[in-house]
Amino acid sequence: MTLRIWSNAKLSPAESQRLARELAPHELVAAEGFDAAEVAVGQPEVERCVGSQKLRWVHLTSAGWDKFDQPRVRRAFADRGVVLTTSATVYSEPCAQHVVAFMLAEARQVPRSLRHQLTDRAWVHREARIASTLLGPATTVLLVGFGNIAARIAQLLAPFGARVLGVRRSPSGAEPVPTFAITELPRLLAEADHVVDVLPGGAHTQHVFDAALFGLLKPGAVFYNIGRGSTVEQTALLNALENGHLRAAYLDVTEPEPLPPEHPLWRAPNCFITPHAAGGHADEQARLVWHLLQNLGRFAVGEALVDRVL
Amino acid sequence: MTLRIWSNAKLSPAESQRLARELAPHELVAAEGFDAAEVAVGQPEVERCVGSQKLRWVHLTSAGWDKFDQPRVRRAFADRGVVLTTSATVYSEPCAQHVVAFMLAEARQVPRSLRHQLTDRAWVHREARIASTLLGPATTVLLVGFGNIAARIAQLLAPFGARVLGVRRSPSGAEPVPTFAITELPRLLAEADHVVDVLPGGAHTQHVFDAALFGLLKPGAVFYNIGRGSTVEQTALLNALENGHLRAAYLDVTEPEPLPPEHPLWRAPNCFITPHAAGGHADEQARLVWHLLQNLGRFAVGEALVDRVL
Repeated sequence: MTLRIWSNAKLSPAESQRLARELAPHELVAAEGFDAAEVAVGQPEVERCVGSQKLRWVHLTSAGWDKFDQPRVRRAFADRGVVLTTSATVYSEPCAQHVVAFMLAEARQVPRSLRHQLTDRAWVHREARIASTLLGPATTVLLVGFGNIAARIAQLLAPFGARVLGVRRSPSGAEPVPTFAITELPRLLAEADHVVDVLPGGAHTQHVFDAALFGLLKPGAVFYNIGRGSTVEQTALLNALENGHLRAAYLDVTEPEPLPPEHPLWRAPNCFITPHAAGGHADEQARLVWHLLQNLGRFAVGEALVDRVL
Repeated sequence: MTLRIWSNAKLSPAESQRLARELAPHELVAAEGFDAAEVAVGQPEVERCVGSQKLRWVHLTSAGWDKFDQPRVRRAFADRGVVLTTSATVYSEPCAQHVVAFMLAEARQVPRSLRHQLTDRAWVHREARIASTLLGPATTVLLVGFGNIAARIAQLLAPFGARVLGVRRSPSGAEPVPTFAITELPRLLAEADHVVDVLPGGAHTQHVFDAALFGLLKPGAVFYNIGRGSTVEQTALLNALENGHLRAAYLDVTEPEPLPPEHPLWRAPNCFITPHAAGGHADEQARLVWHLLQNLGRFAVGEALVDRVL
């Protein structure tokens, strides 16, 4: 069976050619051929997906699928047997590594040393040593939003011996670390030294981290966000940094993005920002194409798809 | 048996009091009582240790023991049955975490983002993503100097799936990763993406990393030093950074220390420096005292000491 595949995935010429070559016997259709395609790849418009009569599978080249996460779309896909997959697996590894990079940068006070290197080139030996900490058995890490990324963070942290806990909407009981319903978040926040926001975007996570929740954090806790900027009420975060309730914040996502140069978060005390780069990596496109081809092989023979969400 | 303990360990009043309290029935002697002490703790002078007739055990509050690593001292200690221990275990955990912090900072391009945050506050989304990498099965990490610290680095890296190799003077065959004699360093350097210098100081490691060795590194490799500044010929390192042969260098130790503000290493391309802070941590003194008391208990009953080197 030959599948007709529509794609608007942003790929380099080299990766586009590799995709076109390796997806045979299936074939790419032209941009205007959407309604004739069985498969849509990249970031297709939700309305076109809902409206197509031929479509059987949508494969997103992102980890997020906020735009499709609506009752109307779920219903339309379920009624017509359309499957939705993401590229979550491609991004969970770099995202998890980014979080551990943040946690260790904080523990070992890397930003403090780099700031001195860029400014006064002072050798702040004693100060840096005293401010440095360890990730270890005395450390509690709370992962808020427990999916692929959080599971991988837990694996990467395992040899440190830290206590890792998870929170999600509906714990399955199969998570690799003790994982609780989101309703228990207030109790758990009071126990955590490191709180990692891995929440997806969308209406139900909008500004989850507000002044009330930041107030529940242990004084001296560190907050990390690699989920979505929209999950944080940024004024509340700014206050928690400015009044010293939080020891530090490491953010890969903000609201808005790009964060304008004059935004106060850039200058907030102990707030460190990377430009929505957590999921990125040098061979991202190659891994995206590999992931798509792997799923295409599975789809063609009716096997279960990786990263299926609908 | 009551042991008389001389100490010049630099401890806070609280930790000094705890030590004095918890080492009973043994007792601390005054600073001038060195020659009456069976145990010397802290950083005693080598000559006094060699000259003492009573001394049976020297316990250093550092991981390094360069000053004692001389044939003359080894002979004197062996002849009189004096034992030398270090506090290596106290420092191997923070040092190992520091190295992984460096490696992940490089992989996730944390210094690049922080530099933008401190200067133009530009949102360098695409550049940061493309420059970011993963620690994974395609990564080879070479640990040069395989002791406690390297063994712990290997454990911390295990879940990343990287290929980890070791080099040491005399491989025991019991190392947890494939470990080769130092004579094979040239061959191994050509394979490594990350080269971690964990060498101790001393005459036999003086300027081991010279222009010839840097020339053997794979183009684009990253060099880390948490051993001793004296193990690196810094002009050669500077050249390797300036001509782009090395992708980056992360140094916790330099020559001299403190590194003077006008030293070119501070401004070398992609050279990131922390101020000999790798072994430091907030509860360093408490862990030093705990380690000493643990060894004291062992010494008093004739059990093998932890971190014994002579």
